[in-house]
Amino acid sequence: MRFSLFYEHQLPRPWSDGQELRLYQDALDQVELADRIGFDYVWEVEHHFLEEYSHSSAPEVFLAAASQRTKRIRLGHGIVQLPPAVNHPARIAERIATLDLVSNGRVDFGTGESSSSAELGGFGVRRGDKRAQWQDAIDAITRMFVEEPFAGWSSPDITMPPRNVLPKTVQKPHPPLWVACSRRETIQFAARNGIGALSFSFVEPEDAGKWADEYYRIIASEECVPAGFAVNPNLAVVLPMMLHEDEATAIERGIDGAHFFAFALAHYYGPTPHDPGRTNVWEEFLSRRDARGFSREQIIANAETLNVNVGSLRGAVGTPEQIIDLIRRYESVGVDQIAFVLQAGPNRHEHICESLELFGKAVLPHFTDGREEREAAKAERLAPAIDAALARRKPARTSPPGYRIDEDAEVARAHRSRDIRSAGRRRFRRGFSRFVHGRSDEQIERLFGPAAQRAFFAGMARAFDPSAAGGFTGELEFRLTRTVWTLELGKTRARARVGAAKNPALTLTLSTADFLRVLAGDANPASLLMDGRLRLRGDVELAPRLSEMFGGPSPY
Amino acid sequence: MRFSLFYEHQLPRPWSDGQELRLYQDALDQVELADRIGFDYVWEVEHHFLEEYSHSSAPEVFLAAASQRTKRIRLGHGIVQLPPAVNHPARIAERIATLDLVSNGRVDFGTGESSSSAELGGFGVRRGDKRAQWQDAIDAITRMFVEEPFAGWSSPDITMPPRNVLPKTVQKPHPPLWVACSRRETIQFAARNGIGALSFSFVEPEDAGKWADEYYRIIASEECVPAGFAVNPNLAVVLPMMLHEDEATAIERGIDGAHFFAFALAHYYGPTPHDPGRTNVWEEFLSRRDARGFSREQIIANAETLNVNVGSLRGAVGTPEQIIDLIRRYESVGVDQIAFVLQAGPNRHEHICESLELFGKAVLPHFTDGREEREAAKAERLAPAIDAALARRKPARTSPPGYRIDEDAEVARAHRSRDIRSAGRRRFRRGFSRFVHGRSDEQIERLFGPAAQRAFFAGMARAFDPSAAGGFTGELEFRLTRTVWTLELGKTRARARVGAAKNPALTLTLSTADFLRVLAGDANPASLLMDGRLRLRGDVELAPRLSEMFGGPSPY
Repeated sequence: MRFSLFYEHQLPRPWSDGQELRLYQDALDQVELADRIGFDYVWEVEHHFLEEYSHSSAPEVFLAAASQRTKRIRLGHGIVQLPPAVNHPARIAERIATLDLVSNGRVDFGTGESSSSAELGGFGVRRGDKRAQWQDAIDAITRMFVEEPFAGWSSPDITMPPRNVLPKTVQKPHPPLWVACSRRETIQFAARNGIGALSFSFVEPEDAGKWADEYYRIIASEECVPAGFAVNPNLAVVLPMMLHEDEATAIERGIDGAHFFAFALAHYYGPTPHDPGRTNVWEEFLSRRDARGFSREQIIANAETLNVNVGSLRGAVGTPEQIIDLIRRYESVGVDQIAFVLQAGPNRHEHICESLELFGKAVLPHFTDGREEREAAKAERLAPAIDAALARRKPARTSPPGYRIDEDAEVARAHRSRDIRSAGRRRFRRGFSRFVHGRSDEQIERLFGPAAQRAFFAGMARAFDPSAAGGFTGELEFRLTRTVWTLELGKTRARARVGAAKNPALTLTLSTADFLRVLAGDANPASLLMDGRLRLRGDVELAPRLSEMFGGPSPY
Repeated sequence: MRFSLFYEHQLPRPWSDGQELRLYQDALDQVELADRIGFDYVWEVEHHFLEEYSHSSAPEVFLAAASQRTKRIRLGHGIVQLPPAVNHPARIAERIATLDLVSNGRVDFGTGESSSSAELGGFGVRRGDKRAQWQDAIDAITRMFVEEPFAGWSSPDITMPPRNVLPKTVQKPHPPLWVACSRRETIQFAARNGIGALSFSFVEPEDAGKWADEYYRIIASEECVPAGFAVNPNLAVVLPMMLHEDEATAIERGIDGAHFFAFALAHYYGPTPHDPGRTNVWEEFLSRRDARGFSREQIIANAETLNVNVGSLRGAVGTPEQIIDLIRRYESVGVDQIAFVLQAGPNRHEHICESLELFGKAVLPHFTDGREEREAAKAERLAPAIDAALARRKPARTSPPGYRIDEDAEVARAHRSRDIRSAGRRRFRRGFSRFVHGRSDEQIERLFGPAAQRAFFAGMARAFDPSAAGGFTGELEFRLTRTVWTLELGKTRARARVGAAKNPALTLTLSTADFLRVLAGDANPASLLMDGRLRLRGDVELAPRLSEMFGGPSPY
């Protein structure tokens, strides 16, 4: 079991001058203390515009400051928001690597999609797009870490030419990856992507146990296809905390913070109206906490219940003995890490520091014996599965030498893709992927009949980007299962017609089903070529450029 | 005169494992030393993908780390790239404020547009757009610092609904602003915007003097309309530096770094081809330095020339006496700060530290006496002009209460503006602004005749965004100087026609010239209303929403 501090940088209203400064300076002092005591991680969120709930909008800055106040503690982003409208993927790779350099390799790279209306609306991110954007961005970012140069990207949301993204991380191939989870489905999602699950919902040990079982089952199965170039098999849960030898004092000091944390979270993630700069969340909390089940009196009346009902948000607010017992229960079901929230609501700096000191003295020593050995045994047990999983991940690309930075062409392509890739087109592509996924050859070919083919090749002709064709004009011939199609590429536009080409520059022969799988990103042309399922005749050099010529991902 | 260190984090090839780590850790040690010695600022660039020349892509992280190793030194971004495709303006405001919090108010906020092909092509920024993007972004960002809540933004490049951007800076109204300059025109530009000029070209004291005169003349004139909410009247120049009591040793230790700096700069900012991940700039430097005028031998042969020709890039590479003399020459012409580049090319950490120590002992004491008094006198001298300049800046907005975060509408609007505001439209708006700017009422009305009006109102009808109309349907009547126009707003579209409305929901009466000035952003409707130049009749609540309803800036 590993232990960490978790920061939202909360600041309930009313605000006065100098309070944010105090909040940040106190937090740095707390992290320094936690490092000395032996905490393993400090996690910091990235949230935007969530007044009172989180004033932590630039964690890269706070964690970098913390790096120079600490020696061993790991610096975790919990999490970086990956939608490209919030953070450009190259900027993310750069800040993670730079933080890894100033901290001498102590970064953990937590990722997420952002999901409050304040943030999605603020940055103009469509809720329906953000999962796909996460998957797209994490693939691009991890490649920026390992590819030299990064071979470029072209997706509905990210267009970037080949560049060497600098600096590189200290940890190789890159810092451990995590993803924010809030329910069973996202824990499974973390496992399928081979990355750590940072569970932000307050979960009972028994439920956490079910999650852990499933998480590790998937990690060890063929379902796991790593999102990065390393697997990080770890499950962390978050709990509010305040420690004191006297239970009533612990509650007195910590329960308002724990309750405000949960109340404000519900405020921003639920349908509660919010008027930026004006809504007073703390006042709403005071007037509605009881109605929402955050009753101070009830907690006090039901003291000694923290082991029974985490949902009450009693969490780890109590005596060392109570907390030791609670940790043991999480440990016994296979949870790897507990992240404690001490800085929450009106909780006071002095009480937080006292709690940390007491934790170091009275709780931590119960969990350190044999910890390294247990972790080594776990790593050994998982190693074969992890090796197998990594073999399933598409490898780092080596782009051919001879690329030349060409500002005008690169900028034109970026704008073209921004302008053209409209919502309709995006929906089409995603629909397309759903269309082929999991279907047999026969099913696909039956569904993709002559009329569908005509519409499709006409669309391909419309999508033709002459700037990506590098001056090529001529005929491309597609010999599918039962039909042959020809695309005539001119200087400025393309035309599609059914039937063989007169003088094809390149002929591609493959089954209709495989053709569609390639287009949907479900099959890799290079693999099909090696399997003999795709045959090329003519100017084979043209083949790797086809996707880009029709507005698809670039091979660079 | 103030003194600073300037960092690009250069790393000439060949690279080996651990070198970037060493580069960053050494730089932190150097900054800590400089702080102890009494340097006033450390500046760090933000560059992307500029291999060897600059591995400094996340200065917010490095400067934050430096904040905890130092006590007094100011932490300067030299510069942050403002094009929104690189950094979202809210993310910039957040990271500047967070750095100000962890450093206890020591941030200087340098800004720029980025101008290498590697960066513009990498992020897809059009060269022709970047100046306007700078102006747009700095206006938005400085408002994020001072408006509570930030009242929102809607421009060709930035769309954001009202949000309270958090945290706020320690320094009020915000950290001092600077802009990167490289020639006379950009120094003038800095002065017109009332912000510090960070001159990155290597300039002789005599030329710097001409720049300084012009800079301060503009600052004190009516041409100065501050980009931020405070004026920062300061001019800094950059010089390579290496100090030693023995001149030959100083040259031996520092001249390769100085020359590589200039050579690599020319490589990335000129037409030289660059193959990402492959071009070896250091080798090119070695084989072509002499041909480009960066001759080691010539420098050695012409020792004692540093006071004659800075263009030779001898810069401040020499003995303390030589450097004192050089600094005095810059000081006498009115330069406020010299930023020294010590970490450049292959320059060694030990030599950099030795130079800094020597500077602190033998150079700095010559320039500190009476410095505060001189600066106070300057501030007093400029105060009336600065007050007058600030009165010309459009003030912080107070948005009306009652706004509600509405994710769906906000996201739809952001995408609509992204999709619709194509290049053509953008050009139209900018052309429009040029059209009215500086013209008299008569000139404008003569140019904007019946045909132009018809085309314009038809365009307005086409631009109608029903989602921003909040369900309103009805007639809007525009009574201009000689003509009356009516826009009929339906549920999904609008229609324009000449002539009075039958039953206008709102009638706006104003001169044709003022109407066009409002549309071009040259006049503020609220001011016109107060001056009696705009009269409203009917549902006046509709008026603040008009701009947004036709795809223009939101009042929020």
